[in-house]
Formats: sequence, C-alpha cells, structure tokens
Amino acid sequence: MSDLLTQLANLLGDKGFLQGDALRDHPACAFVIPRGLIRPASTEELSQAMKLCHSAGQSVVPQGGRTGLVSGQCAQTDEIIISLERMNNIQSIDTRSRTMRVEAGVPLQQVQECAEERDLMFPLDLGARGTATIGGNLSTNAGGNRVVRYGMARDMVLGLEAVLADGTVISSMKSVIKNNTGYDLKQLFIGSEGTLGIITRAVLRLRPKFRSQNTALVAVSSFEQVTELLGRADSALGGSMSSFEVMWNSFYSCITQHSDKHRLPLPVDYPYYVIIEAMGGDIAADDERFHAAMEDLFESGLVADAVLAKSTSEREAIWAIRDDMEAIYALYPLFAFDVSVPLPDMEAYVADIETQINAQWPDNRLIIFGHLGDGNIHVVVAVGSDAPEVKQAVENIVYGALRERHGVISAEHGIGQEKKRHLAISRSDAEIALMRTLKLAMDPTGILNPGKVIDIACA
Amino acid sequence: MSDLLTQLANLLGDKGFLQGDALRDHPACAFVIPRGLIRPASTEELSQAMKLCHSAGQSVVPQGGRTGLVSGQCAQTDEIIISLERMNNIQSIDTRSRTMRVEAGVPLQQVQECAEERDLMFPLDLGARGTATIGGNLSTNAGGNRVVRYGMARDMVLGLEAVLADGTVISSMKSVIKNNTGYDLKQLFIGSEGTLGIITRAVLRLRPKFRSQNTALVAVSSFEQVTELLGRADSALGGSMSSFEVMWNSFYSCITQHSDKHRLPLPVDYPYYVIIEAMGGDIAADDERFHAAMEDLFESGLVADAVLAKSTSEREAIWAIRDDMEAIYALYPLFAFDVSVPLPDMEAYVADIETQINAQWPDNRLIIFGHLGDGNIHVVVAVGSDAPEVKQAVENIVYGALRERHGVISAEHGIGQEKKRHLAISRSDAEIALMRTLKLAMDPTGILNPGKVIDIACA
Ligand SMILES: Cc1cc2nc3c(=O)[nH]c(=O)nc-3n(C[C@H](O)[C@H](O)[C@H](O)COP(=O)(O)OP(=O)(O)OC[C@H]3O[C@@H](n4cnc5c(N)ncnc54)[C@H](O)[C@@H]3O)c2cc1C
Ligand SMILES: Cc1cc2nc3c(=O)[nH]c(=O)nc-3n(C[C@H](O)[C@H](O)[C@H](O)COP(=O)(O)OP(=O)(O)OC[C@H]3O[C@@H](n4cnc5c(N)ncnc54)[C@H](O)[C@@H]3O)c2cc1C
Repeated sequence: MSDLLTQLANLLGDKGFLQGDALRDHPACAFVIPRGLIRPASTEELSQAMKLCHSAGQSVVPQGGRTGLVSGQCAQTDEIIISLERMNNIQSIDTRSRTMRVEAGVPLQQVQECAEERDLMFPLDLGARGTATIGGNLSTNAGGNRVVRYGMARDMVLGLEAVLADGTVISSMKSVIKNNTGYDLKQLFIGSEGTLGIITRAVLRLRPKFRSQNTALVAVSSFEQVTELLGRADSALGGSMSSFEVMWNSFYSCITQHSDKHRLPLPVDYPYYVIIEAMGGDIAADDERFHAAMEDLFESGLVADAVLAKSTSEREAIWAIRDDMEAIYALYPLFAFDVSVPLPDMEAYVADIETQINAQWPDNRLIIFGHLGDGNIHVVVAVGSDAPEVKQAVENIVYGALRERHGVISAEHGIGQEKKRHLAISRSDAEIALMRTLKLAMDPTGILNPGKVIDIACA
Repeated sequence: MSDLLTQLANLLGDKGFLQGDALRDHPACAFVIPRGLIRPASTEELSQAMKLCHSAGQSVVPQGGRTGLVSGQCAQTDEIIISLERMNNIQSIDTRSRTMRVEAGVPLQQVQECAEERDLMFPLDLGARGTATIGGNLSTNAGGNRVVRYGMARDMVLGLEAVLADGTVISSMKSVIKNNTGYDLKQLFIGSEGTLGIITRAVLRLRPKFRSQNTALVAVSSFEQVTELLGRADSALGGSMSSFEVMWNSFYSCITQHSDKHRLPLPVDYPYYVIIEAMGGDIAADDERFHAAMEDLFESGLVADAVLAKSTSEREAIWAIRDDMEAIYALYPLFAFDVSVPLPDMEAYVADIETQINAQWPDNRLIIFGHLGDGNIHVVVAVGSDAPEVKQAVENIVYGALRERHGVISAEHGIGQEKKRHLAISRSDAEIALMRTLKLAMDPTGILNPGKVIDIACA
C-alpha cells in the first residue's frame, strides 16, 4: 500500500501530495492525521491521482472549506484527504451571459465579490462565506439567506465538472440555461456530499445586482396569520421578496434577554416576529411598493405591530437580532437541528415536540426560528446535558415527530455522518435502495467518502 | 409471450389493458399498432403491470399527451404503450404551502386553471398546454414562455413518484422546498424522457398569481445592444421580467409579409425586435416601474424604437406576431431547430450557419427567433426540399456549428429518437458512458423506452 503513497508523491510533487510529518501543520489534519493529503492543481492531476487510488482500493475524502456541519468532510487515519485548496481560481466571468467559470476550491465570498465588481450578484449567501468553497456549497446543495427568492445552490449552477472514483472526468461545463440533451448528470454530484464524484469546476449563473433593499420587522399574533402573511407579502412584493425569516417568541425573548447589544425594535410579548426583506432594481419605485405593501398588510389586520428600517443601521439592527447566535450558545449544552416541515403542519409539529420535551425535561429551553419562507426551521433544544443518551432521546423526539408530518431531517446541512442513523425517517426503503444502486454503479469499490450519507456493502 | 398479455388483461381488466381490436380506435395507436396498451388507474396497478413486463422482458413506452416533438413517445409494433390518461386527477391543492399534488396524466392547462382559481399560478406554460401532461412535461423537462423568470419544469417540482423498470415504486412525494437528505432522486426522472422510470405523481410548487402585466415591443439596431438590453432590462425590472423574446428581422419581416392579420406596431427595417414583458403583484407600482424602466432604456440609446401595449388587445397583437407559426409554416418544406448558444457566441453562430446555408442553397430562407433571455433560439431553415439527404446536410450545419461554440442541440425538446444521432455534439464520450452506466443500473434489461435518448447494449 505504501507503493501508492510513493506513486502519488511522484505524480503530484511536494506541493500536490503531503504525507508523514508534512501533514501535522495542515489544518485539514487538526483532528485526525490521515494517510495523506492530495492537493491537486488541476482536474487532470486529480484524475491521475484518483486512478492510482482506485487501483489501490484507497478511500478518499473530499474537502472544501471544512465548514460542513454534519461531519461529511471528516476523514479516518486510513483515508486520504483530497483538498481542493489549490484549485481556487476564478477562470472567467462573462457579463453578457452573466456566468462565471470557477474552480471548486474558490471561497464563496470571493465569487460574490467578483460578481459585485461587475455589477452582478451570485445570490448564494451563508455565514461561512469566507471559508466555505463553491465545491462544498454544491456538494452539500447549500441554502442560506435568500432561498425564498433565488433557490438553493443547485439552482445557481449551469455547468459542472467532476472526477469519478476511477478517475474519469465528467465535464459538462456548459454555460447555457436550457440544455435538454439527455440525462442532467450534474444533478448527481450536487447534494451528494462527495460520495459520487469530486467536483472540480463549475459554471455559475449570476443575477443582476440589486440596488434597493427594504426591510421590516413585524409582529404577528398567530401562526395561522404568519402563513397568510407569507402568501400575501410574496404576492404583493411581486417577485422581489428575498427573505421571510420567522422568530418564535422563544427566540426573540431569549436574544433580547441574554444580550444587551440590542435596542428593542418591538416589545417582547408577541408570539411571532417576522423579518420581511425585498430587493430590487429601482430604489424609488421599490421603496414605494414596499411601503404600500406593508401598509396594506397592516390594514388587513394580519400584522400586530411593525417597524420599517429607515436606514442601513436600522436594517442591520434588525438582522443582528436574527443572527445573534451568541445568546443562543449561552444556553450550552444544547442541540441544534435544521429541519423542514410543510407549513400546514408546522404549528402542530412545534407543539408536539414541545409537549414531549416538557414531559421528559421540565426544565428545558426550546427555541425556534428559521427560513419560514422555505418551510425550514431551526430547532434549538437545551436540557442541561449533552450526554450521548440525552442526545439520542432529543433526536428521537425532534426527528421522530417529522415522520408522520412528512417533514425532513435535513433542510440544508445534509446527512454526512451525523444524520445517517435517521435517514429512514425521510426516505423510504426503496429510495435508500436506489441510492445504493447509484452509489454502486458509480463507485463500485466504495472509495469515495465512505460511510457518509449511506452505508453500502461493496463489491 | 402472449402469456404476458393474458396476465396483464387479468390484472388490469378491460379498461386498464387494451389489446387486439380494442387498440384500433385509440389515438395512441394512430400510426403504429403496438402489442398492447396499459392504462393504469393507480401507481400500484402500474407497479404490478411493470413487474409482469419486467419478468417477460417486454419493452414499454410511456405516453402522456403525445405532444412531444422528438418522437420519444413513439412505439414499435412489438412494444406495449403505457398511457397515464386514467391517472389524471388533481389530488389536492394546499394554498398555505402553495403546493399541488397531481397524478402524472393531468393536462398542464388543468393544473394552471386549478391554481388560478385559488389565486395562485403554476408558471409552466407552452403552446401544447391543453394536451401535454404534467408527466410529459417533467419527463421532458419542458421550458416554454416564462423560463427567464421561473425556470424549467425541473424547477417547479418539489416531490415526485415514479415506477422503475422492475415495478419498484420510488415515492418522494415531499412538499418541502428544502430537502437535503441524501441523493435527490427525482432529478433522475426529470428530463430523462421515460428511459429511467415512469412518473406517476408529483408535488408541484405554485407561485403567487401576478396581477400586473406590462408588455413592450422594442426595435434594436445591433445584437450587441440586444444583449446589453437584456442585462439592463432584467436589472431595472428587479426580478419581475418574465419574457425577453427576440425576433430577428428575418422573422419579423416574414410574419408581416406573409400574413395580413397583423397591424404593424413597428416598421420592418430594424435588425432585431424584442418583446419585453414583466409580471408583478401591484398594478399601479408595476406599471410605473415598467414605464420608468422603458424610458431609461430609450434614453440610453439601446432602443431604436418602441411601443408599449396600452391594453390587453395591444398586448395580444404583439404576442400574435411572435406566435404566428402559420406564416412560418407557409414556407414548407422546412426544418425547425431548438438550440441553445451562449450569448457571446450567438451572433457569430447565426452568421456562420447563414454563410454555410447560403453557400449550399443560395435560394433559402433562414429565420431566427427565440427565448433569448435563456440563450435559446429557434432556427427555421427552408431550402425547397425536405429529402432525407437534405435534412442531414442542414442538420450537419445547424448542429455542427454548435460544437465549437459550446451550444447544445436541444434547449427544450429533448433527444428522443430525432436527435440521438447528434448527441455527441453536446455530450462527451465520458458523459454518454455515464448515462449508459445509469441506464444499465436502473433498467438492466433495457425495457423502458428503448432506443430513446441513448442506445445501450443490454445484459
Ligand atoms: C457559521 C456557519 C454558517 C453556516 N450557514 C449555512 C447556511 O446558512 N446554509 C447551509 O446550507 N449551510 C450552512 N453552513 C454549512 C456549510 O457552510 C455548508 O455546508 C458549505 O456548503 C460547506 O462548504 P465547505 O467548502 O466548507 O465544504 P466542506 O465542509 O469541506 O465539505 C462539506 C461536504 O462536501 C464534500 N465536499 C467538499 N468539497 C467537495 C468537492 N469539491 N467535491 C465533492 N465533495 C466535496 C465533503 O466531502 C463533505 O461531505 C454553515 C456553516 C457554518 C460554519
Ligand atoms: C404546439 C406545441 C408547442 C410546444 N411548445 C413547447 C415549449 O414551448 N417548450 C417545450 O419544452 N416543449 C414544447 N412542446 C413539446 C411538448 O409539448 C413537451 O415536450 C411536453 O412536455 C410533452 O408532454 P406530453 O404529455 O405530450 O408527453 P409525450 O409527448 O406523451 O411524451 C414525451 C416524452 O416523455 C415521456 N413520457 C411521457 N409521460 C411520461 C411519464 N408519465 N413518465 C415517464 N415518461 C413519460 C415519453 O416517453 C416521451 O419520451 C410543444 C409541443 C407542441 C405540439
């Protein structure tokens, strides 16, 4: 087997392959020292390296920025890590067809900034933007703050290139929006967390940069009204609504009690708080439309109270409440979940887990907030312990209650290793069997990110 | 083998299985009389029927509304047709989460109307709406008139159910927008033209119904300006632009010369004509924004001449020009193509095929128009003959010129049987090999719509 390490070293050189002592200082090896670390400079190099790994039956773990939240990027001591960190170039940007060709190791923020310099926008946005890479974003089909308007990472990519387990390069780097020429292979690599191929390059779709941004924080008295507000606001804002974020009272009151950073834009005694934001191309007209829509909503009785941000600092103050994880983390130990529930079932879902958690841990904190415009909520549960058996009991409640409500155990973050045990809550036996069929067809010896998403019995 | 027919008749009854004389009057058998016609009433029935066909090695051809343009729905005499015509129910509509559960045989128009009755919209729209089915739309990943704003059929579906070649039911009927729980299996069935599974049901995503609609026809002097106009208009209309349709002078002058139905909104001597349309939620504000945007564009010098529709009948008159295929068909015999070309290459592409066609058939008509907002154009070529060798020569020019410009041979319509010969222009050998791997993994005996999209050598 150490034949393989020699072959890789010969192929890739000192910069392209790290082993032994050279691994110790690399951040990829902070927790576990793997057999080696491949840092390809090109798709062709990666292809050659994968041919060697494939022949040797060597398992590999693809890594981007290592910001994943479900341990999909974590390697074992007998595995080789493949880091895309040297494939971090923006290859070209075309302002006419509004596309950008990038290598998979480019950090998201660099892509955003490059687009902005050209008066365009790459709409994907998430907290880890400075470190997370396009390859990681696509492999996890990342979501983030603007899904309600622009969709998930899957919706922002036109072309893709990936290297298969045996080193074959699948290059579909087309930059056209409409392409019905046989199976859409890129879909296989998006969201499969590095288990079907290693993404090396992509053609991203850019959008016009917005010029106007309008933000309101509104208080609502019932969940019924929250869902009605969502429909009405989306409709009235005519395609320009870019966020509809809901904070349950549990969240709003926790943030404002546990942190003195915030001025209180609205009193703490409402059941729900919603941030509504719209982005558009015409400052004057958009402002007017936003104000008119908010006025209508207020008059309709759906909104109990509201503030409209009148300046950037007021907008930032509103978002600072939503983004203040410090106050949440102060509740440590805690468990955080990222689930989707169909809107008509969401209120009952929250009531159900609340009842169950109260019954088992009377002294708990249950905090709910999230991207309600997408049916996605974050559930934070603090019961005073994070012992494994407590974790399992809490997971069984939070995930278990999803089953009959057709919710899903992962809205954004993926399955990785963390949620594998619960996959059957969201996927049928037949679906999991078909996932295995695909995995075996594309990676028959199971060397690509083994143990992530699903387990397989290999040939 | 006629054992199989008896088994199917016993399983499905007179209504569910047609054979012999009963086939003659069925529209599915207008051109070819197949071995039989399966008309399942439920997913479960189809699953049982597929188990029988699978055991018998019987090839099957799924059919929706039979409006496909690439002969993907056409069967041979030794095949069995599967028509979804009895699975044509809208199962439920949920206005809160804005989703609709439908059986695959529902015609598109019925879905559109059902959504509209609830003040919602299913944005997919195409000329064959009255006959084409949701199953057909998804299997072909249909496009249509509003892709620039709402995307393709793929982008409008949250959940999907399909029956595999061996009768296994893959049911992923989730109605949530965000679902990162392992491989997104529905992507396999969307756009694969019935070769990987038979779509039986779907959860569709609905949008708020638009209230405002603004339409302009503008004349532009150069292609460079057309592409700049696209970016500026999209940006100024801030997410509300729903169509950006371009007619080359060849199209506009042909329509207005060959048909006396049209009042001429603009003189015929401009090189390009663009229909720009926006839809939104607020009539007054949207009208104002549209007018302001058009005024800006006019002042910028990008627009040589323009008319804004001031009434529904004026809007219809503008669209009637774009939709008047009669004048085009009057040029018969002709060949029509549906291709995508990256915008920066489009002008050169058109010039290239024009030169080649002029050289071979000096007396030709070459007419270009299309969904330029999506990089998708229709190319109509009339050279006075539609003999097979002429067809091949024209195809070689129109498709051949796409290769170096990274265009694709099918933007919307798919591959079916018609474009299979040219698939390698748009897809690499490695891509086609991976398509075969997937096909063999999911349908090892090749009974699902054989000979469509790709050919395989079966086990
Ligand atoms: C502060 C913070 C905020 C976050 N907010 C969000 C959010 O709002 N929405 C959201 O969806 N996620 C969020 N995340 C999660 C994370 O940022 C995303 O999953 C991100 O897309 C991962 O990118 P990465 O480059 O760090 O990938 P990694 O963590 O390195 O890898 C993630 C997975 O993708 C695989 N992978 C990585 N690169 C490749 C490649 N080139 N080819 C094939 N497989 C590859 C890995 O094997 C692993 O399974 C957040 C994380 C943090 C720390
Ligand atoms: C006047 C006219 C205008 C058109 N305009 C457009 C347009 O703007 N954009 C566009 O994209 N297309 C357009 N088309 C093409 C056609 O309407 C679409 O391809 C449509 O989606 C086909 O639907 P169908 O139900 O008629 O499918 P069919 O023609 O019956 O089948 C099409 C393909 O899908 C498969 N299939 C059908 N149902 C299923 C199922 N349930 N499961 C699995 N496979 C299935 C068939 O085997 C076949 O390969 C147009 C056609 C016409 C006649």
